Amino acid sequence: MAETVGQVGEDALIELFSVEGGALGEKVLVPNGDDCAAWFVEPKYASVITTDTLVEGVHFDRAYTPATALGRKLVAVSLSDVAAMGATARYLLLSVCLPPETEIRWVVQLTAGIREICRAHGVAVIGGNTTRIQGPVVLTSTVIGRIQPPELIRRRGSLLGDAIFVTGRLGEARAGLELLQAGLRPGPEDSASSLVAALIDPQPRLKAGRRLAEAHLAHAMCDVSDGLGRDLRRLLIPEGLGARLEANLLPLSAPLRSFCGQKGRSPIDYALRGGEDYELLFTAAPEDEPAIHEACAQAGTPVSRIGVVTAGPEVEIFLEDGTVLEVPTGFEHFEG
Amino acid sequence: MAETVGQVGEDALIELFSVEGGALGEKVLVPNGDDCAAWFVEPKYASVITTDTLVEGVHFDRAYTPATALGRKLVAVSLSDVAAMGATARYLLLSVCLPPETEIRWVVQLTAGIREICRAHGVAVIGGNTTRIQGPVVLTSTVIGRIQPPELIRRRGSLLGDAIFVTGRLGEARAGLELLQAGLRPGPEDSASSLVAALIDPQPRLKAGRRLAEAHLAHAMCDVSDGLGRDLRRLLIPEGLGARLEANLLPLSAPLRSFCGQKGRSPIDYALRGGEDYELLFTAAPEDEPAIHEACAQAGTPVSRIGVVTAGPEVEIFLEDGTVLEVPTGFEHFEG
Repeated sequence: MAETVGQVGEDALIELFSVEGGALGEKVLVPNGDDCAAWFVEPKYASVITTDTLVEGVHFDRAYTPATALGRKLVAVSLSDVAAMGATARYLLLSVCLPPETEIRWVVQLTAGIREICRAHGVAVIGGNTTRIQGPVVLTSTVIGRIQPPELIRRRGSLLGDAIFVTGRLGEARAGLELLQAGLRPGPEDSASSLVAALIDPQPRLKAGRRLAEAHLAHAMCDVSDGLGRDLRRLLIPEGLGARLEANLLPLSAPLRSFCGQKGRSPIDYALRGGEDYELLFTAAPEDEPAIHEACAQAGTPVSRIGVVTAGPEVEIFLEDGTVLEVPTGFEHFEG
Repeated sequence: MAETVGQVGEDALIELFSVEGGALGEKVLVPNGDDCAAWFVEPKYASVITTDTLVEGVHFDRAYTPATALGRKLVAVSLSDVAAMGATARYLLLSVCLPPETEIRWVVQLTAGIREICRAHGVAVIGGNTTRIQGPVVLTSTVIGRIQPPELIRRRGSLLGDAIFVTGRLGEARAGLELLQAGLRPGPEDSASSLVAALIDPQPRLKAGRRLAEAHLAHAMCDVSDGLGRDLRRLLIPEGLGARLEANLLPLSAPLRSFCGQKGRSPIDYALRGGEDYELLFTAAPEDEPAIHEACAQAGTPVSRIGVVTAGPEVEIFLEDGTVLEVPTGFEHFEG
C-alpha cells in the first residue's frame, strides 16, 4: 500500500513542499523556513500580489487531473493575474490542505508540477504551510511580482472608441471540462485533446503582458477567468462604458467548432460564457493594433481584435447573421 | 431561516470581504478589486510575508469559537509571524472557502473580527478571494509587512551563553482547548476564562517585536505556535546549539496552575508541549536583560528570562526538585 500523508510527519511534508523553483536571487533576504519570508524591492519598483485557491470538487477533480498538471495550474492561475497587470512574477507562497489518506506519491507529483512552472517563469518558492483537512484537497497559491509603476496596467483606463483585444483562444477550457465530465478522455492524436489541455494546463501570458506594459499599449487589462462576458464588464464598469463585440472576430478554434458541431451548440456561447481561459483581455487605441500584433508576436502569443468600446452601458455582440445579442455575464461560483 | 452563502451571489460575498481594515495610505497603488493588489515599498525597506491557514475541525470548532474571535485569530496568527521578524504589518490578503450552507450572519461576524484586528494594528485589506467548498470552512490569511533589513530578526543567530526569553504566559491556550473540548464554558468571572481567551483570542506581540528589533536586542526570534519545546529547537538547530531551561522561571499563570492542579497534571508540561501560545521566543545577550525588560514594558508586554543557550545539542529543563528532563518536541499536526 502506498504511503499517505497521515503516515508521515509534518516535517516530511514541509520538506516535500520546499521546492525552490527558480533562482532565489540576491533580493531574497529570508527564504522559506523562518516565520516570514523577506525580500528587498528595488527602489523604482512596486510589488504586486495575488492569491488563488483551488478546491477539489469545485475547481478540479483528481479523477481526471494529473497531479503534475494540477501543480502547474495552481501556480498558472496566479501567474495569469500577474500577467494581467503587466508585471514580472518573482515569488510564490503555498498553502496546502491535505486529507490524511492522500498518497505521498500524489503529493510528490503535485510538487513536481509546481517546481516545473516556477522554473519556467523564474519564480522562487519562499514560503507556505501544510495542514491536514477532513475534506477535499485545498490548494492556495500566492504570487508576488514586481513592476515599475508607470508600466502598471489596471482594470480601469478604457476609453470610448478603444479596440478590444484578447490573446489565445476562448471557450476551449469549458469544452474540455464538459468532455472530461462526460467521461471522455481524448487521446493525443484526437483534436479534442487540445480542449482538455486548455483546461488542465493553461499557459499564463506573462511575456505578452510584459511586452504590452513596456510599450504602454494597453489602456486597461484583466485575465479571462470567469468568461469573456463577465470579465469584459470588469474593464468597462469602472468607466461606465459598454462594448460591441463581433462574433466573427472571436478566436474560436477548429477543435471547439468541431466539439460544438457535434453537440449542436454555438461555439460563441462557449467563448462568451466559458471560464478558465486565462487569456489576457485588454483595451487599446485602435491605431495601435499593428504594434499590439507585433508585441504579442514577439511574445509568441496569438492575439485578436474582437470589438470596440462604446458609450454603453450595454455589452452587445453582433452575430454573423446580422442580429445583435446582449452578452451574458457568465456563471456564478456559488450557484446551486 | 437565515440566509446562507449558497443563496447569495459571488459578488455579494466579495463585497462582504471587502473590509478595508486600517488606512490604505499613499503606498498602495492598487487596492482590492483588480487582478493583483500593488504597493510601493520605501527604498530602505524590505518586504516580509507570511501565510497561515485555519481549517475547521483541525484548528477551530465553530461550536465554541465565536465568528468575530475567529476573524481576529485568523489574522492574529499571521501577525504573530510578522512580529517574530521584528517587522511592522501593513497589508492583508484573505482566501476564504465556505460551504454553501454557511449562514451569512456568521460570515458578517467573521469579517467584523477581521476588520477589528486590522484596524487595531493598522493593516489594510488589499486582496483575496472567496470560493465554495463541499467540506469544512478553510480560511487563509496572508500578511505583508515591512522592515529595514538591519533590524530583521531571524531564527538563526543564537550564541552560546545567550539568555532565552519569552513574552506573556505559556500553556494557557492548550488548557483552554481542553476545557472547551470537555464541554466546559467558563463564565467571565471564572479565572479559567483567561485560559479560553488565550486560545480564542491570541494577542500578536507586534509592539514588543518592533521594540526588540529597533534596539537590536534579540539575536534570534520566532513565535511559539507549536509548543515551547518544538519552537525553541527552531532557534537552536541552525547553530547546532542546545539549551537549559529552568522550570521555576517559566511564565505559568495562576489559572493554569489551578487547572492543572484539578487535573493532576503538571503546568510545566502544558508550557513545553502546549501549542498556539503566539508569544515571542528569543535569545539575547545576558547583559541586555534590563534593556529587554524595559523594551517589553514600553510595549506593555510581560517578558520572562527562562533559560540559557548551551553547547547542546540537548534541550533540557531543570525541574524544581533538582532533576533534569529532556524537553519534548511537541505535537505533530499530521498524527493519527
